[in-house]
Amino acid sequence: MADQKHVVIVGAGFGGVRLAKELAKENVRVTLVDRHNYHLFQPLLYQVSTAVLSASEIAYPTRQFFKNNQNVNFYMSKVTGVDQDRRVVITKHGEISYDYLVLAAGATTNFFGNKSVERNSYAMKTLQEAIALRGHIIHEFERAARKSAPEEREARRRHLNFVIVGGGATGIEMAGALMELIEIFKKEFHTIDFSEVSVTLLEAMGSVLPMVPPDLQQHTIDVLRKKGVDVRLNTAVTEYDGNDLTLNNGEVIPTKTVIWAAGVRAQDFIKDCGGEVDRAGRVIVEENLLVKGSDRVFAIGDCANFQHGDLQRPLPTVAPVATQEAMQVKKNIMALIAGKTPDQLEKFVYHDLGAMATIGKGEAVMNGPMPVLGFNLKASGFFAWFAWMLVHLVRLAGKYADFTVSVKWIWNFFFGTRLARIIHSKLE
Amino acid sequence: MADQKHVVIVGAGFGGVRLAKELAKENVRVTLVDRHNYHLFQPLLYQVSTAVLSASEIAYPTRQFFKNNQNVNFYMSKVTGVDQDRRVVITKHGEISYDYLVLAAGATTNFFGNKSVERNSYAMKTLQEAIALRGHIIHEFERAARKSAPEEREARRRHLNFVIVGGGATGIEMAGALMELIEIFKKEFHTIDFSEVSVTLLEAMGSVLPMVPPDLQQHTIDVLRKKGVDVRLNTAVTEYDGNDLTLNNGEVIPTKTVIWAAGVRAQDFIKDCGGEVDRAGRVIVEENLLVKGSDRVFAIGDCANFQHGDLQRPLPTVAPVATQEAMQVKKNIMALIAGKTPDQLEKFVYHDLGAMATIGKGEAVMNGPMPVLGFNLKASGFFAWFAWMLVHLVRLAGKYADFTVSVKWIWNFFFGTRLARIIHSKLE
Repeated sequence: MADQKHVVIVGAGFGGVRLAKELAKENVRVTLVDRHNYHLFQPLLYQVSTAVLSASEIAYPTRQFFKNNQNVNFYMSKVTGVDQDRRVVITKHGEISYDYLVLAAGATTNFFGNKSVERNSYAMKTLQEAIALRGHIIHEFERAARKSAPEEREARRRHLNFVIVGGGATGIEMAGALMELIEIFKKEFHTIDFSEVSVTLLEAMGSVLPMVPPDLQQHTIDVLRKKGVDVRLNTAVTEYDGNDLTLNNGEVIPTKTVIWAAGVRAQDFIKDCGGEVDRAGRVIVEENLLVKGSDRVFAIGDCANFQHGDLQRPLPTVAPVATQEAMQVKKNIMALIAGKTPDQLEKFVYHDLGAMATIGKGEAVMNGPMPVLGFNLKASGFFAWFAWMLVHLVRLAGKYADFTVSVKWIWNFFFGTRLARIIHSKLE
Repeated sequence: MADQKHVVIVGAGFGGVRLAKELAKENVRVTLVDRHNYHLFQPLLYQVSTAVLSASEIAYPTRQFFKNNQNVNFYMSKVTGVDQDRRVVITKHGEISYDYLVLAAGATTNFFGNKSVERNSYAMKTLQEAIALRGHIIHEFERAARKSAPEEREARRRHLNFVIVGGGATGIEMAGALMELIEIFKKEFHTIDFSEVSVTLLEAMGSVLPMVPPDLQQHTIDVLRKKGVDVRLNTAVTEYDGNDLTLNNGEVIPTKTVIWAAGVRAQDFIKDCGGEVDRAGRVIVEENLLVKGSDRVFAIGDCANFQHGDLQRPLPTVAPVATQEAMQVKKNIMALIAGKTPDQLEKFVYHDLGAMATIGKGEAVMNGPMPVLGFNLKASGFFAWFAWMLVHLVRLAGKYADFTVSVKWIWNFFFGTRLARIIHSKLE
């Protein structure tokens, strides 16, 4: 197959894996590049941070997707840039030449230039970050348990105050899951006075979950407050030195734990791929998903800025955008191979599937058009939570994970057990 | 309960946890100290190294054992010594005074003074070591996959030669499980020539598995060789610089992976606990399990040298020794509290339960007295493997792990799936 065209895909997230699976069926050669050897199910990362799931339940070996596809190869490396003139992807381990290239590199945490926060807070975008955060949270309780003398109260409080920044889905889900983890700790840390424990959720805007209607936003806040979360709106962070968090109203929260879930941006190398990028580092794409100015480089998912038609802002950074774009890019690459020109390619149209977020056991909110049913569905409570579980199970990679995650959720629902409570870091 | 005696237990392994569970029922106060926050099921550590099980399936949160026992406290710290005169355990975070002390600190890897091996090889005693080894093995295949040019053959071979040192249960089980992992890789690394992959098992003595009869030893060697393991007896390691392993016959194996399963010794701090220690650093105990010369410090399990009666050597470093000793120490502590003197305490008698090791899917060897049935049982093959599974499931901590580990083993048996294949280390 010497005449097979070579498609290189950068990133094995939702978009990259979907695209590689689709192209695997075609007469093309595919190389999928990622710095990790697994596909990460990011929407459930907060469940690793809070010891509900283990890492291997949301991290699926990328090569396993393609064991029956001899035309798909995986290349584990970090991409540092693209030379569009020479048609090569530059990685830490060498260059890979391409006929067609798709950037599907996802997003990383956006600290909006605040260096003190970047240095000292916990981010929630990679598996390593989630595992480090899990270990840290549990370790803070162990540290507090060792400081039982009355004069150690100040030091102890600093260990037991937890602050989450950002009222999007990640921040909300983290806050709910953390409160449940603390319920389990109440039974096990016999010497800790749990009135000294606090969880605070800070949101710079006037409400949480911008993608759901105001009544569901208020419902979410009510549920979190009932669980004991101190939800503060219109409150932003100005500085954090690892011991004291300073807010924009001048208040200082003594805490060793700031969890940053306040924003995302594209990976740094995206700006070195030869396209035009926006303020969040995303590459601007045409309606056919080609990178502006290129006839063979596409970009999809969180690293792409698609803003056409009625859109007031780029598409949201969610999995359905990436997978729908992947399907369109597959069609467009096959069209180019068949001899079409870029201006003859189909335009991408996003079908909004709505939004959902879980607030804890038996509680979630959802809002979205139901294309099949022909109406908009808005729901909260147990029904929304059940729907949330089903949607996430369906999207998980692999039947085995479907099975064990279901069992774990059911087990956790009835017995409140959190087993994945491993502190990996060394004792300091 | 101001008159409650305080028992401090160092180590939350099989012996320490069993003892704490037993003492929880008594009118004593217990503090269990460990540097990790989990109880580790060490016999299945090789299954984490080979991506069969995830870490959380063999690491059980120690505090969860005692959630209903207000008289048992956990203290997460590293013990550095004991001052028997002042009756205090010295930890990295402060001192803990005791009325009675039990050393149950387990064992660590013994490199027998070979510094080059210690620096460059992979040990298999802690969860961190098992996870690092797992990541390294998978990473070596990824590295080899990136080096596909003919002139890179030498470098590639170095990535694809794997050497295990030690023909005890750990080495045997690791070799068998590694061969099965490689079978899975054969389907997924499309560009690797698997004739370049080798697994070598080195044993310094004339046979493997010293605790089973010669015919089972030979059977084990035969099974491993049939699986493709290069088993070499009477072969020892002299040096390893991280690239080339030198053997005592002068041969050099180019390899990036030496897995050291050749010996154990007590933790370093055991020598600083005020007792007499043997060459492997274990503290010498009397027949009543009191540390020689003490009337209130006991030692059990892998950190104790119990050699009395007909024994030609210390008891084996296996879980049943530790748990049986724990039961005896519990009785002896309660007897001391009740006013007995050390010379009135019961002597410990070990009931040998035999030995078993699995060589791979459907293959194991077992040998042991069956006290209930009244005869010695020697078996190999599928029956022994099934018995091995049952014995390990029964001993695992927690019903949830019993369930998920069973499911995973069954799944792996039929589909050969290894999901826990996460490389945590950073790309270099």
